[in-house]
Amino acid sequence: MIAVGIVGASGYTGEELIRVLQSHPQVELTTLTSTSHAGESVSSVLGLNFPFEHTFQEPTVENLSNCELVFFATPNGIAMEMAPDLIEKNIRLVDISADFRIKDILTWEKWYGCKHLSPHLVKESVYGLPEIHGQKDKIATARIVGNPGCYPTATLLTLIPLRNHLPKQQVLVDAKSGISGAGRNPDSTKLFTEGVDNFQAYAVKQHRHYPEILGILESVNADLDILFVPHLSSMTRGIYSSIYLQTKFENVDQVTAIYKDYYKECPFVSVVDESVFPKISDVENTNKCHISPKYIEDQDGKINLVVFCVIDNLIKGASGQAVQNMNIMFNLDEKTGLI
Amino acid sequence: MIAVGIVGASGYTGEELIRVLQSHPQVELTTLTSTSHAGESVSSVLGLNFPFEHTFQEPTVENLSNCELVFFATPNGIAMEMAPDLIEKNIRLVDISADFRIKDILTWEKWYGCKHLSPHLVKESVYGLPEIHGQKDKIATARIVGNPGCYPTATLLTLIPLRNHLPKQQVLVDAKSGISGAGRNPDSTKLFTEGVDNFQAYAVKQHRHYPEILGILESVNADLDILFVPHLSSMTRGIYSSIYLQTKFENVDQVTAIYKDYYKECPFVSVVDESVFPKISDVENTNKCHISPKYIEDQDGKINLVVFCVIDNLIKGASGQAVQNMNIMFNLDEKTGLI
Amino acid sequence: MIAVGIVGASGYTGEELIRVLQSHPQVELTTLTSTSHAGESVSSVLGLNFPFEHTFQEPTVENLSNCELVFFATPNGIAMEMAPDLIEKNIRLVDISADFRIKDILTWEKWYGCKHLSPHLVKESVYGLPEIHGQKDKIATARIVGNPGCYPTATLLTLIPLRNHLPKQQVLVDAKSGISGAGRNPDSTKLFTEGVDNFQAYAVKQHRHYPEILGILESVNADLDILFVPHLSSMTRGIYSSIYLQTKFENVDQVTAIYKDYYKECPFVSVVDESVFPKISDVENTNKCHISPKYIEDQDGKINLVVFCVIDNLIKGASGQAVQNMNIMFNLDEKTGLI
Amino acid sequence: MIAVGIVGASGYTGEELIRVLQSHPQVELTTLTSTSHAGESVSSVLGLNFPFEHTFQEPTVENLSNCELVFFATPNGIAMEMAPDLIEKNIRLVDISADFRIKDILTWEKWYGCKHLSPHLVKESVYGLPEIHGQKDKIATARIVGNPGCYPTATLLTLIPLRNHLPKQQVLVDAKSGISGAGRNPDSTKLFTEGVDNFQAYAVKQHRHYPEILGILESVNADLDILFVPHLSSMTRGIYSSIYLQTKFENVDQVTAIYKDYYKECPFVSVVDESVFPKISDVENTNKCHISPKYIEDQDGKINLVVFCVIDNLIKGASGQAVQNMNIMFNLDEKTGLI
Repeated sequence: MIAVGIVGASGYTGEELIRVLQSHPQVELTTLTSTSHAGESVSSVLGLNFPFEHTFQEPTVENLSNCELVFFATPNGIAMEMAPDLIEKNIRLVDISADFRIKDILTWEKWYGCKHLSPHLVKESVYGLPEIHGQKDKIATARIVGNPGCYPTATLLTLIPLRNHLPKQQVLVDAKSGISGAGRNPDSTKLFTEGVDNFQAYAVKQHRHYPEILGILESVNADLDILFVPHLSSMTRGIYSSIYLQTKFENVDQVTAIYKDYYKECPFVSVVDESVFPKISDVENTNKCHISPKYIEDQDGKINLVVFCVIDNLIKGASGQAVQNMNIMFNLDEKTGLI
Repeated sequence: MIAVGIVGASGYTGEELIRVLQSHPQVELTTLTSTSHAGESVSSVLGLNFPFEHTFQEPTVENLSNCELVFFATPNGIAMEMAPDLIEKNIRLVDISADFRIKDILTWEKWYGCKHLSPHLVKESVYGLPEIHGQKDKIATARIVGNPGCYPTATLLTLIPLRNHLPKQQVLVDAKSGISGAGRNPDSTKLFTEGVDNFQAYAVKQHRHYPEILGILESVNADLDILFVPHLSSMTRGIYSSIYLQTKFENVDQVTAIYKDYYKECPFVSVVDESVFPKISDVENTNKCHISPKYIEDQDGKINLVVFCVIDNLIKGASGQAVQNMNIMFNLDEKTGLI
Repeated sequence: MIAVGIVGASGYTGEELIRVLQSHPQVELTTLTSTSHAGESVSSVLGLNFPFEHTFQEPTVENLSNCELVFFATPNGIAMEMAPDLIEKNIRLVDISADFRIKDILTWEKWYGCKHLSPHLVKESVYGLPEIHGQKDKIATARIVGNPGCYPTATLLTLIPLRNHLPKQQVLVDAKSGISGAGRNPDSTKLFTEGVDNFQAYAVKQHRHYPEILGILESVNADLDILFVPHLSSMTRGIYSSIYLQTKFENVDQVTAIYKDYYKECPFVSVVDESVFPKISDVENTNKCHISPKYIEDQDGKINLVVFCVIDNLIKGASGQAVQNMNIMFNLDEKTGLI
Repeated sequence: MIAVGIVGASGYTGEELIRVLQSHPQVELTTLTSTSHAGESVSSVLGLNFPFEHTFQEPTVENLSNCELVFFATPNGIAMEMAPDLIEKNIRLVDISADFRIKDILTWEKWYGCKHLSPHLVKESVYGLPEIHGQKDKIATARIVGNPGCYPTATLLTLIPLRNHLPKQQVLVDAKSGISGAGRNPDSTKLFTEGVDNFQAYAVKQHRHYPEILGILESVNADLDILFVPHLSSMTRGIYSSIYLQTKFENVDQVTAIYKDYYKECPFVSVVDESVFPKISDVENTNKCHISPKYIEDQDGKINLVVFCVIDNLIKGASGQAVQNMNIMFNLDEKTGLI
C-alpha cells in the first residue's frame, strides 16, 4: 500500500481525488489537509456518499511526513513553497496546481504574477501527460510530477500525434469548459442563476493554460502557432475542444490511422467512430479522452481538418490523470483504480 | 410621472424592478443606489439588455430626496433605519425586504435577531398583498407598504379565500423555490455545480417566512395551523407550493368556484383548468399567480384537497408585486407596466 | 460466473444495468435484447464509455436460453408474457417492470388496463425490497423477483421501520422525481426545453406506484392511509420524498434509533446526520438510500415528523436494486458490483 | 391594424410569434393554423401565460383569406406550396422556414432534397435581414420575405460590415446553439436527460444554413470562404458564434468603428464594450444582436481577429426578425412591438 496525502483536499479536485483513491486497491489515504476546514470531518464537509472516517488537518510538513506521495490540489503557489521540505524527506509529489508545469521560470513568473520559490525543482520536474511518447519512463522515476491543466490535456493529446505530419501553421483551439473548471470558491460567475442556460467566451488572451500549451509543444518540437479561445458552457464538467487544422492528407482515414497508432498502448484515449460526434456525457466521470477527427471541404474545394477532443475536466483534466501518474510512479498498471 | 428611487438596486430584486420600471409609462427612475457598486454604470454592472443611462449612487437620504416613492430591495435592516427620515420628507416607501411585514415587534425581533429601529412605523405600515379583500384601499393611502415574501404570497393567496370554509386544522405547505430566491450574494449553495441537477429541503423550522404567514393569517382571522417545509429546486425562478387541506366540500368545483369568486376582480390570479397541472414556466417572468385545486381520495374513501400555487418568486413574489402596490398607491391601473 | 440476459437493454434502466453488470465480478452478460435496435452494436446505440463488444438481439426465448438469470428492463406487459417459457427452462427472473409487483390481480388489471397473462406466477413471485425484514430469505430462493418501483422504494423504506410505532393515520407522500423517471421514449414533457428550469406536479390520483405502495404496506400489516402526490423536477435522476407523519415519540432521536436499528445490517441505507439536509447529489449514481427524520413543532405546540428519503431512481429505484436482488438470489454479498 | 395569420403556430417559432404579436399595437391576429392541433384552444396547447381566445384552425387558403400578411412558422416545404394561392389573393408572406432564402434553385433542391414548387416566387422574394444596407427598401415593397435562419443571421451580421475591409480568406465560424434550435418535435437528442449538462458538435458539413450563408455573401460580393461548425449547448435559447478572421487593421478600435458606423441606424444591433464578453443572457428574449470584436496576438506576433456574435435564436434568429420585417413591410417603426 502506498501512503498518500492530499494538500487542499476540500476543493473540487481534492474531492475527486478522494473519490478515486478511497477505492484504489493500492492506496492508503493517510493525510488530508484543508486550511479552511482543518479539524472538520471530511464526510460532513464534502457530503461524501461513501463511508469515510478522515478529518481534515492543517497543511504542515509534519502532518504529511508519513506519506510516500503527496498530491497538491491547491491553488497555485502552495506546492512550490512546500516542495523542498517534502522532497528532502523523500516524499514524491504530484502537483495538480500549476507550479511545476512550465519549465521557463520567467514565463511562469510573468503569467502567474509572482516569484517562483523553487526554480531548481522545476528543472527536475516531469510534465505528467503519460500519453506523450517517452514521458512514461520519466514519470516513473520522477520525484515531482507537474500534472497538466485541463485545456492543455485536450489540446496536446490532439496535436502531438500529428505534429510531424503538419505544415507549420496557426492552429485554432476553440474550447468549451464546464463551470466546475473555475473551482469551488464562490463568485458571481459561478452562480447557478448566472450559469444555467447561458454561454460566454472568457479570458481570451489571458488564460494561463496558453503558455503551458506553448511550452510543451516547443518541448516536443511541434512548430505550431496556437490561437486559444476558451468559453464557459452551462454544464458541470467537461472540456470540449474544437481544434482546426490545415492538413496535407488526402482523407481523414489517414489522420485516424495516425491517432490509432500513436495511442495504441494508451488505455484511456480512443478515436471515436467516424459516424458519430463525441459528447461530454461519453467521458463524464471517467479518465477517458475521446478524439474525433473530421474533414470539411469549403466551397473552394480546400480540405480542412477539425478534431473534436472531449475529456472530463476534473478527471482526465485533473485528478484522474494525477492518479494515473501516481500509478506509473509506483509501477502499478496505469489503469488501477480508474475507469 | 412618479419620481421613483430604488435602494439596493444591484441585487436580483433590484434588477427585476429596474426591468419592469424602465418601461413603465408613469415612472421616472430618478435614483438607483447600491453600496457595493456606487459610482459604477448600472448597465455594465447588470449587463442590461436595454438602453439605460443611470449610475449607481450611495444610499443616502439626500440622494433619494427627489423621489416620491422609494423601493427597498435591500437586505433586511436597511429600510427600518432609513424609513423615518424618508417619511419625514413625505416620501412613500415600498419595502421589499422584511422590515415591515410582521406587526408583532417581539416576533420580528426574535426571528430576525436584532432590535427593530422603527416600531412606530411598523404600526402604520400596510401589508402589500392587494388581492386580500379590503387591502387595496389601505395600500392606496399607505405611507409604508411591507411587500410580502415569496412563500407567503403563494401560501396566503391559496389559503385566504378558503379560510371561512375550512374546519380548524393543520395545513401542510410543501414548497419548492428556484435558486434565485436566495439572492445574488455568492455562497456555495448557490453555485451552478451544486444547484444543477439537484434538489434538497432546507431551513425547516427556521425559515423567516413562517412567522410572516402566521401573522397575516391571524390578522384575517384564519384559524389554521401551518406546517411549512421549503425545498430548493434546480431552477432559476419560481415558487411551486403544494398545499394540503382537509375539506368539507363534496367536490372540487365548489373550491374552484370560491377561488374564482374571490379573485374575480384580480387580474393577476387565475384558477387553471381542472385538466392540467400548472408549471413554473406558465408564470415565469410575469406577475401572475396560477392556482390549481385538486381532489384526491385515499383508500379509506376520505377526500383530500391539494392546491398547487405557482408564482415567479422575483416578480409576483417580489418586484412585480411591489410595482403593483406602487400602482395602487398612485391611483394607476394595478396592471400598468406589468404582464 | 452467472450467465445473465437483459430484455429491453436499450432503455435507461437497461443501460444502467449494463453499466453496473459489465464490471460485476461474478456476471457474464450473455444476451442483450432490444426490439428497436436488434442487430445494432450496443456501444454505438448507447454511446458507452467503456469497451463492450455486444450486439442487441431479438427478445426471443431461444436467444435467452443460455442464461441463468434474465432481467426485464422492458415496458410493462412483456415479462408476464415471456415468464412461463423462461421459468420452464429453469431461468430465474428479476422483473424491473411492474408485472410482478402487485399480488392482487384485479388491482393490477385495473391500474395497468389489461389482462394479466401469468397470474399463477404472480402468486409465487417475491417483492424485491431486500431491506424489509424477512424478505432476503424469500428473494434468495425465488424464481421470480418483482423489482420495486422508484417511488415505492423510497416510500416503503421510510414507512416500514416505523409501522408498528405509529397511530393509524393518513400519511402524506410529497415526492419529486428526476426526468429520467419517465424513460427514454421521447415525448414533449421530456424535452430539454420543457424540463429545464421548470417544476410541476403530475399524475396525481393516477400514478401506478400508488397501488404498489398500498399492496406492500398491507402485506406487512402497516395500517396507514397514503396520500401520494408526485412531481417532476428539473434534474436528470433522483427521487426526493418528503413524507409527513403524526408521531407519538417525544423526540426525533427515538425515530433515528428505530431506523438505525432496523437497517443495522443493510449496507445501502443510512440515516443522515441530524444537522444536515440530504440532497440528490449525495446518492446520485449509487445504490444508497439516505433517510433523514426531522421534527417540526407547529404554533399549537403539536409535534410533526417529516422524513426526507433520497435515492437515485435509476439505481436503488431500478437497476441497482435489481442487481442487489440478483446477488442475493445467487448467494453473493449483496454489495457485489454496487456502490 | 394589420390582419395577420400564422401557419404552423404551435411550434416554438409560432409560439414566439404569438407572444410578440399579441401585444403588438398594430396587429390583429386573425388566423392561427396548426395541422396537429386544429380545433384545439391555443391557450391550452401552448400553456400561454396571457389571455388569448384563439382556436387553432386547419392551414387552408380559405382560412387565411382574411389576412393581409401570413407568417409561415412551418417545417420546410409548406410555404412554397401555399404561396402562389396566397400571393394571388394579394396576401403578403414572411416565410420563417427555408423555402425562400436561397436564390439558386438547384442549390436549394440539393440541400433540401426535394423539388421546389415555386421557383418563380423565389426570384422575386427578398431576404429579410433588414440590417444589410439597401435591404430595408426591398423588404418594404416585397410580397414575399424569406426570413433568415438563426446561424446565418449571426454570421452575416458579423461579416457583412467587414467584407470590403478583409483580404480574401477562409473564415471559421464556430457556432453554438441552444437546444430549442432543433424545434419542438420530440426526438432523443432533444430530451432533457441527453441535453442537460452536455455539449456536442453536430451536422458538420451537412447543416442547411451553410449554403444560405454562402448565397447571401455572394449576393453582397463578399469574397470569403466559410468553414461552418455548429455545436449544441446545454441551454434553451441562443446562438453564440465565435468567428475567426485574418485582418489588416492595426487595432481592434478600427473594427469597432466600422461596426458602429455600419449599424448606426440599426436599433437592434450593438457593439459591446471592449472590456466585457457578451453572453447569451444579455440578449435572451430580445430581438437584439450583440457584437464583440477582440484582437488576439499569437506567439509569432500575428494579429488575429475574433468576433463574438450573440442573438436569441427564437427572436432575432426567427420570430422577432420576422416581426421586424413585417413592421418594415407595413411602414411601421421597425421596433414596434419588439424589445
